[in-house]
Amino acid sequence: MPHLLTLSDLSIETINDILNKAQEIQMQNLYREPQPVITANLFFEASTRTRFSFEAAEKRLGYHVLNFSAENSSTQKGESLYDTLRTLEEVGVQAAVIRHKQDKYYEDLRDRLSLSIINGGDGCGDHPTQALLDLMTIKQEFSRFDGLTIAIIGDLRHSRVARSDAEVLTRLGARVLLSGPKAWMNETLPGEYVDIDEAVKTADVVMMLRIQHERHNQGMNLSKEDYHKQYGLTLERERLMKPGSIIMHPAPVNRGVEIADELVEAKRSRIFKQINNGVAVRMSVLEWAVNKNEEAEQYEYVAFKR
Amino acid sequence: MPHLLTLSDLSIETINDILNKAQEIQMQNLYREPQPVITANLFFEASTRTRFSFEAAEKRLGYHVLNFSAENSSTQKGESLYDTLRTLEEVGVQAAVIRHKQDKYYEDLRDRLSLSIINGGDGCGDHPTQALLDLMTIKQEFSRFDGLTIAIIGDLRHSRVARSDAEVLTRLGARVLLSGPKAWMNETLPGEYVDIDEAVKTADVVMMLRIQHERHNQGMNLSKEDYHKQYGLTLERERLMKPGSIIMHPAPVNRGVEIADELVEAKRSRIFKQINNGVAVRMSVLEWAVNKNEEAEQYEYVAFKR
Amino acid sequence: MPHLLTLSDLSIETINDILNKAQEIQMQNLYREPQPVITANLFFEASTRTRFSFEAAEKRLGYHVLNFSAENSSTQKGESLYDTLRTLEEVGVQAAVIRHKQDKYYEDLRDRLSLSIINGGDGCGDHPTQALLDLMTIKQEFSRFDGLTIAIIGDLRHSRVARSDAEVLTRLGARVLLSGPKAWMNETLPGEYVDIDEAVKTADVVMMLRIQHERHNQGMNLSKEDYHKQYGLTLERERLMKPGSIIMHPAPVNRGVEIADELVEAKRSRIFKQINNGVAVRMSVLEWAVNKNEEAEQYEYVAFKR
Repeated sequence: MPHLLTLSDLSIETINDILNKAQEIQMQNLYREPQPVITANLFFEASTRTRFSFEAAEKRLGYHVLNFSAENSSTQKGESLYDTLRTLEEVGVQAAVIRHKQDKYYEDLRDRLSLSIINGGDGCGDHPTQALLDLMTIKQEFSRFDGLTIAIIGDLRHSRVARSDAEVLTRLGARVLLSGPKAWMNETLPGEYVDIDEAVKTADVVMMLRIQHERHNQGMNLSKEDYHKQYGLTLERERLMKPGSIIMHPAPVNRGVEIADELVEAKRSRIFKQINNGVAVRMSVLEWAVNKNEEAEQYEYVAFKR
Repeated sequence: MPHLLTLSDLSIETINDILNKAQEIQMQNLYREPQPVITANLFFEASTRTRFSFEAAEKRLGYHVLNFSAENSSTQKGESLYDTLRTLEEVGVQAAVIRHKQDKYYEDLRDRLSLSIINGGDGCGDHPTQALLDLMTIKQEFSRFDGLTIAIIGDLRHSRVARSDAEVLTRLGARVLLSGPKAWMNETLPGEYVDIDEAVKTADVVMMLRIQHERHNQGMNLSKEDYHKQYGLTLERERLMKPGSIIMHPAPVNRGVEIADELVEAKRSRIFKQINNGVAVRMSVLEWAVNKNEEAEQYEYVAFKR
Repeated sequence: MPHLLTLSDLSIETINDILNKAQEIQMQNLYREPQPVITANLFFEASTRTRFSFEAAEKRLGYHVLNFSAENSSTQKGESLYDTLRTLEEVGVQAAVIRHKQDKYYEDLRDRLSLSIINGGDGCGDHPTQALLDLMTIKQEFSRFDGLTIAIIGDLRHSRVARSDAEVLTRLGARVLLSGPKAWMNETLPGEYVDIDEAVKTADVVMMLRIQHERHNQGMNLSKEDYHKQYGLTLERERLMKPGSIIMHPAPVNRGVEIADELVEAKRSRIFKQINNGVAVRMSVLEWAVNKNEEAEQYEYVAFKR
């Protein structure tokens, strides 16, 4: 079964297939009756939204779900990730969603397992389902990527969202602007560094990043107030935004730091819509991983009224 | 969708509807086939019985369940309860069961969310589903509340059960007697303070409260043995009880402290029956919250043989 | 409902029934549609594979599953295991899988509960479902137990696998050889102590045990390398094994300590097959516990294509 490790591994055609299926799932409110499929969520880092989003997606697909948190497990007994996953494979798990502190934890696993690894975030590396839900949100708004300007602003160095998004958006024909504190610049990202006001003024999408305190070696030197003034989306800056442009943020938001409290649910904010899209995108990704090969049993969806 | 925050919010008619449905569910051993409904249990305080009771109720209703414990979550990243719940809403959660240390944690949430909050206990505040299962237990025994005498004995100050029960029982026409250590008296409760022997002798229902060590600022000054002698239901005191009267306790019981070990499963004890009633009451509450509005899809129950 | 506490409690006939059903489940890839049955997994010790194996088994049987870890529970409030289980009984739980640090934790519970206890491992005591999956693995290989020679090698004192396996294998007519560090010899096990090379040379099954660091009062005196040389299955020792003989290990494996890294997935290793058998054996055990009595509703299995 295929893995989803980084978006760079996926062709544009596959990305579009996944997005189109996600849109169909969301529009028709699709779910599945219980299926004989087992998935596992292995979160070696704390998470609410991503785990819940995947778990909701899995359950709406009718899958059985095994949840694993780093605290209560044999990894304490020194077991390697490979041995844990081989075990899950034998237990019948067909897809494992993994979030892990280590960059590219999957490198020496990808060719040794028959289950599908869905990367739920690796260190300061990638977060491909977040990038897909960001794409879905942008596509719902503008129906295209080509020619759009996307400003990604903030903690560029420690954000796996920035990496995944900048790469795929560039590939899809968008222009990526980058802005944020100098200390957090990231030379490996595609995109053009500009002043924040310039970025906010020019962009169709202003994507603010979360400050990843938990992945910093040292604290931020600025107070929250100063960060907000210099690098945040303040009320004043929001007024510079173009008509029809939107605000995004991967959440959880540090309200009043990356973005003014009042803007989180403002009319042009898509922050909670992004979360909503996350479930549909993850359903689409899981179905792609579990049911895509031709020999797999094909399960039927059911639509339900809310 | 409606919230269940305190019983004071519910009319006597609604309370009776919930109790009648719970009785029907229990008598006919009802459950539901899997449904496209997602609920979440958010326990910010340790709990076995309440979480398991809700989870069993949710699963017997055919719902998908997301479990959350305070340790492994973005609340560590400083997210507010509001943002967590808005996230769950977007993930598709229709009802969230919440236990929280803070009194009235729900105050600034109630009008800002479309999901239903079911209060699973707030600080030293309320515990409405516990009160409902207590009502169900009393009703099964006496078929009425009017004219009954209920003695609530023990840690009145820190017990959310005491508050919820005293309020609703008074409203339903019962006479509430209160007894316990002076230091733990609670002026805000409706009811009449009496000597413990007097309370035990007079009551149709002797409801002993758990000592809430975890909510005390300072330890109890008495030894367990002295507490038991002065404020507990000893074997001697039990002999003072009226014929037909029953013993209740919200559990978990400190055996030999609030109540003599031998009385926990005595003939007149309803302590484990209360737990059993808890599942039926919570099924009834969840159905009321999730399916009550007229536009909601109505799901069918199935009866099963044990 | 029956308990499964130790294999000594089961007749050979019952053991064979369970193994045969497990084999049928595995061969036909059986599962069940959702059933109105609730089971609980109570793990008071860390575990990945055993909990996941039971949970996958329960879910493939269509049961609802309640998971409990020692950290977030009322056992912190000092509740006894008996009271916890009585609570679960009232909540509707029909079978509880329990792993506990204390040897024979079940002794004063077995006659006081109507739910079924499935022992998932007690202290340095027993681990009956592990022994059953070991039997299943051996039977798949040799179609018999009588006349086989099984060498159990390593931490005999702290291993519950060793106890459960040595007892039942002896009863089934196999010859049990024991080997390992003198400090970890266990006089209570049936079997004959021999030199490790002798054991490896003679055995049809070389069963290596995990070093149970977490159950030792003091650390091992040997370095990992020295342990491996003296008591481990090295590449050299493996060459002494008879044609057709197999390697087993309860896992998780300390690679390079109990067994050479390269041997874990060698041709004659059945280590991951054991894990695979675990799910089928546990499905069979759970069905035996939950559905065996004649009054119980009989549920139908469904076969599914992978």
